[in-house]
Amino acid sequence: MSTSPASMPKEATSKETHVLQRTTEHLAARYEGIFTPEMVERYVFESFTALGRTAKIRTYLAAMAGHFADSRLRSLALSMNRIEHEVPQVLFVCVQNAGRSQLAAALLQKLAGNRVEIRSAGSLPAPELHPETQQLLGELGMDAQDTYPKPLTDDVVRAADYVITMGCGDTCPIYPGKKYVDWQVEDPDGKTNEQIHQILAELEGKVKQLWREINAKSN
Amino acid sequence: MSTSPASMPKEATSKETHVLQRTTEHLAARYEGIFTPEMVERYVFESFTALGRTAKIRTYLAAMAGHFADSRLRSLALSMNRIEHEVPQVLFVCVQNAGRSQLAAALLQKLAGNRVEIRSAGSLPAPELHPETQQLLGELGMDAQDTYPKPLTDDVVRAADYVITMGCGDTCPIYPGKKYVDWQVEDPDGKTNEQIHQILAELEGKVKQLWREINAKSN
Repeated sequence: MSTSPASMPKEATSKETHVLQRTTEHLAARYEGIFTPEMVERYVFESFTALGRTAKIRTYLAAMAGHFADSRLRSLALSMNRIEHEVPQVLFVCVQNAGRSQLAAALLQKLAGNRVEIRSAGSLPAPELHPETQQLLGELGMDAQDTYPKPLTDDVVRAADYVITMGCGDTCPIYPGKKYVDWQVEDPDGKTNEQIHQILAELEGKVKQLWREINAKSN
Repeated sequence: MSTSPASMPKEATSKETHVLQRTTEHLAARYEGIFTPEMVERYVFESFTALGRTAKIRTYLAAMAGHFADSRLRSLALSMNRIEHEVPQVLFVCVQNAGRSQLAAALLQKLAGNRVEIRSAGSLPAPELHPETQQLLGELGMDAQDTYPKPLTDDVVRAADYVITMGCGDTCPIYPGKKYVDWQVEDPDGKTNEQIHQILAELEGKVKQLWREINAKSN
């Protein structure tokens, strides 16, 4: 070829493929009788490619893809009633899944603990969490395990009883029997420290109100 | 709720869901014995949600999702040797799948016709094709049926014998046995008429060279 070959980290990537294959085996065992190993493999590798399109740091990409695929498979199984739907399912969606939706998810998790199952997604996932968001999550004492930006997928919408959108318009597929709510909240990205704490306080009020409504409906 | 419900086009969307269900039936019949109807349904609905995250115009979204899902299922079947691999498979990837990768695909299609199978994708798909690209595709006399920006997926990489990347770094998963090539070509987005014709001429030279190499390898 007259053009130079792409300088891609081939060795690192074959390691990644190995991790993804092991993840596939692990998840295929977890979802045995619900999904075929072939379907699980698709979820793992497509989750990896989807995160890889936008993720800035590749170090944990295979691990994140495993986590993301597991969350999506669980969502799909819940929506098909192949796993018992024990607690209300809430999905927060914003544009980048790097600020508002992550903070709302953390606030509801803190408030409701294991009485609710929470996911978050973005229409155009950012390369990484906004630094302001990382700071606020730290202040809230939240674990950052699940806090990577990820694209909105059909499966997580299907699993949700409540879909809360913030600034991402009509990107969510609409299914019957779900409660869709749109919150007008500003994006903390690039704001001053005072402003991001105002946004956090505003989100906290909305999350408390949401949790009251979820409780009122469940009881 | 204290917040206003999202103003989402619920009726249009239930029509879309109907179209997607019919597409699922149609594709399940086409890929019978290769993929389960459940897997086909996942491909159709996830393709719809993936395009919906970034597409500007929703009018043809369900139809585009059907086309995209079909292309992805065919790719996957090819990569699994469940469909006969008759001609070389080429994948062009750029950032937005709205300019360079679309033009390269059109140029190779014009040159090689049905002696090659071509796909294109983007790491961050644009809301729609760039106007400059639409103009150039018109000048090339190309059909615009397949020319919507779509995200890079694992299946299309797996199917490819040649993966040509332009400006999108290491977003492609690396698999053995494929030829990965990186082309240094400027993005035509926002350029002058003269500049975009220069870019087209440059792409044309590279595409001709690629086609020579593909032929040399196949013979």
